[in-house]
Amino acid sequence: MNDANYPWCILVPERADISEVFHLSTEDQIILQQETALLGQSLQRLFQADKINIGAIGNMVPQLHIHVIARFKNDPVWPAPVWGKMEAKKYTEIARKNAILSIQNALGDKLTAIS
Amino acid sequence: MNDANYPWCILVPERADISEVFHLSTEDQIILQQETALLGQSLQRLFQADKINIGAIGNMVPQLHIHVIARFKNDPVWPAPVWGKMEAKKYTEIARKNAILSIQNALGDKLTAIS
Repeated sequence: MNDANYPWCILVPERADISEVFHLSTEDQIILQQETALLGQSLQRLFQADKINIGAIGNMVPQLHIHVIARFKNDPVWPAPVWGKMEAKKYTEIARKNAILSIQNALGDKLTAIS
Repeated sequence: MNDANYPWCILVPERADISEVFHLSTEDQIILQQETALLGQSLQRLFQADKINIGAIGNMVPQLHIHVIARFKNDPVWPAPVWGKMEAKKYTEIARKNAILSIQNALGDKLTAIS
């Protein structure tokens, strides 16, 4: 997400017209679980996060997507969940590119579609 | 959860001192994914929910737990996520028992620790 308040990624399974995790095949559910865990662990290590928050909400954008957010005890809304609390604080273009690069490096070649 | 605003369950893996999904073994992660999907699908069918919201937050209670919440377009805070929005509206004792019984029935013998 273009929100510099917290490192915040969104995983979108490339499957059409899916709004709930349980609509995926069992195999795809396992892949999504593994990718979510990999991303969460990578963000936690990279940013030394105090907690990783994971959410499949989708009340406004129904296409299935998983929020994976690195949280810190001194971030702007801790301990509340992030949704609906703060206006997104846009990255500068350089900071955005750097954040994406560091996350891509932390993931290695395991997840390639982070942008 | 004792909150009649929305059907709201919490899954707590019986593993000590775990705060993140990715701290679980791969096998346990898959079981948790399957149980989360089963619970989500059962709540969706039972209550004819418009959306299932799933979250692993844990900023205040670190022991790993997964929120699985049935949401409706006419529920009190739709489309916002539920956390931090409304005071819990306690069930009456009879309504609480009935809600638990219907969820237990919807799950059959697949998940037994709902309470």
